[in-house]
Amino acid sequence: MTTNVAVIGASMTQFGQRDAWVRELLAEAGAACLDDAGVDPESVEHCYVSNMASGEFEGMTGVPNALAHDLDCLPAYTQRVDQTSSSGGAGMYAAWQSIASGASEMTLLVGGEKMTHRSTSEATDIIASLTHPVEYKHGVTLPSFAGLTARLYLDGYDAPRESLGKVAVKNHKNGVDNPHAQFRKEVDLETVLESPIVADPLRLYDFCPITDGSAALLFCPESIAKEYTDEYAVIAGVGGATDTHVVHERSDPTTMNGVVESGRQAYERSGYDPDDIDVAELHDMFTILEFLQMEGLGFAEPGKAWKATEDGRTERDGELPINTSGGLKSKGHPLGASGVAQGYEIYKQVLGEAGPRQVDADVGLACNVGGFGNCVITTIMEAGA
Amino acid sequence: MTTNVAVIGASMTQFGQRDAWVRELLAEAGAACLDDAGVDPESVEHCYVSNMASGEFEGMTGVPNALAHDLDCLPAYTQRVDQTSSSGGAGMYAAWQSIASGASEMTLLVGGEKMTHRSTSEATDIIASLTHPVEYKHGVTLPSFAGLTARLYLDGYDAPRESLGKVAVKNHKNGVDNPHAQFRKEVDLETVLESPIVADPLRLYDFCPITDGSAALLFCPESIAKEYTDEYAVIAGVGGATDTHVVHERSDPTTMNGVVESGRQAYERSGYDPDDIDVAELHDMFTILEFLQMEGLGFAEPGKAWKATEDGRTERDGELPINTSGGLKSKGHPLGASGVAQGYEIYKQVLGEAGPRQVDADVGLACNVGGFGNCVITTIMEAGA
Repeated sequence: MTTNVAVIGASMTQFGQRDAWVRELLAEAGAACLDDAGVDPESVEHCYVSNMASGEFEGMTGVPNALAHDLDCLPAYTQRVDQTSSSGGAGMYAAWQSIASGASEMTLLVGGEKMTHRSTSEATDIIASLTHPVEYKHGVTLPSFAGLTARLYLDGYDAPRESLGKVAVKNHKNGVDNPHAQFRKEVDLETVLESPIVADPLRLYDFCPITDGSAALLFCPESIAKEYTDEYAVIAGVGGATDTHVVHERSDPTTMNGVVESGRQAYERSGYDPDDIDVAELHDMFTILEFLQMEGLGFAEPGKAWKATEDGRTERDGELPINTSGGLKSKGHPLGASGVAQGYEIYKQVLGEAGPRQVDADVGLACNVGGFGNCVITTIMEAGA
Repeated sequence: MTTNVAVIGASMTQFGQRDAWVRELLAEAGAACLDDAGVDPESVEHCYVSNMASGEFEGMTGVPNALAHDLDCLPAYTQRVDQTSSSGGAGMYAAWQSIASGASEMTLLVGGEKMTHRSTSEATDIIASLTHPVEYKHGVTLPSFAGLTARLYLDGYDAPRESLGKVAVKNHKNGVDNPHAQFRKEVDLETVLESPIVADPLRLYDFCPITDGSAALLFCPESIAKEYTDEYAVIAGVGGATDTHVVHERSDPTTMNGVVESGRQAYERSGYDPDDIDVAELHDMFTILEFLQMEGLGFAEPGKAWKATEDGRTERDGELPINTSGGLKSKGHPLGASGVAQGYEIYKQVLGEAGPRQVDADVGLACNVGGFGNCVITTIMEAGA
């Protein structure tokens, strides 16, 4: 690794139902990020857009070109990075590669998606288009995979249904302190457990909402970062991996190989291990996913994440705070933005700028999951020296 | 630049009307490429898919995940690279960055698109979704930009209409010797000039067809390339740039700033200049684009490309053979595949493996254009030492 890659700016828009198209959301986050870093648009050399489906949601493609135009950063090189729901994490990996390879000395990454103008069934169907055609044909959407796997987990590990509910309760509680979150209200366990069934045993409050929003990060070599600021983060390690497209081919759906392998790479490249991580943003599109990532990343033994959660170890004042941002659960999940927004939270935490959400953290980890663990990016970030 | 990036394998499928979905086309090209290089699927660390619109054309997303599954190269990291019609060139840039940064030691790039199951107007509309909403609303599709710009060029430079026709004649002639081309038949100038008007002054034979197909390239560090083969190419330089999203904001639409700037970067990084280029693949989606790229890349003075073409300088036996593959014009233009197929031709040419299309070439250049010059990638490749 020849060049240390720094993150010198971050921003995110209000997440929720927004009266703006994706290009407007991207421009809002992109401009705010450049402003945060005090970097002129003309200094941007690469401009990546993490976005899954602007064409399907809005009938608009070529969004990176539109963004570079809107931000006035021409002739910056632009490209869309798509890895379905993990497009944001994939964008962080692409941005890291652009700097580490010497291709760019200033890379702006903006993730975003506009979804709420579509009905829930339309949005779910667009997302389900990433599943294997045979599974898709049988009507298996991502929520149904989540329900089936949750049942397997609860039965296999004698875990109480309540433990899943506590993920939702914790993340909603954290989200109250996040001004950008879609939902800023606490929910109690009873509300979660009595909410309408979506995919048994999972209920409405086990799922993240449909969301519009955007988030951005600005990357450059560490040597250049110091010209702009003393307060920057460094990408300590990043890794990405893919699992089977056909979910039912996995020998044990409660083990997400993409999580395990991307985590292994990120730990190896950073020199850190799970014990070194002080704060983590995990992809809680469904409550069960938080358990599977905790176990896949070595934060809990297999079958023990539910216990760690029940014991409060992942609370803001616990041993390893998880989803201090509120997670996808309360913050919302604008597909292409989510991984970048995870990076935003970790950046803020390791720099001590997370305000009321702040925990004691030198090193943080973000795990962004595409599909039902189909493709996963894990990124470890720390404060710059 | 720390790592020299080699290309050790290449493949392309038959282009044309194919009875196969994009994931099948990608798997066909990907497997053939690994086979060409003698590399096992499990050695692949990154697997990039250049594709603009599988969701819009087929209702299928997450295609990179499907490909990794089909090729049996899990847990390779996968990602879709989209830069509209220049997604293939963007994929070459992404693959280069993955190797040069040390993120991957074996990156498979597969570009592909499945389009012919859609009507011409549907396909044109999907492509037109990359234009600025205001221009789109006024019904300005890419062919209409081409017609307007062709008129401007012919008028401004006193160029004869016939010179554009000669681009089509030349590229069709070259395509006869390309077994993968959609059209393998010569056309005479009269046929071109009397074909139906599409966007005055451009006629049917000034346009590339709608095409299904896929192409693939395999990248690794040069140090590793030698373990597999003595016959490899090296990426000498690559560059990418973006122009205005709103085409009518350009001061002179006959100058493509994205071509100029991406070429400048590729020349600077490679240490080559236009005179060093022995063969070039240019993005002749419309005949006029070949002129604009020749001029933007320094192969002809502004307003002189038509004369160079009339003089036969770009013929296979000319000073600088352009589109020896037949170009998009006769080979076809499966959006995400085209830039990769350009790389395939340059790879074959610099290795002396282009068969009946072979010209005398040590250094070749590929220029892949997205939109109407909205985003452009220029790649320079040479034979490995």
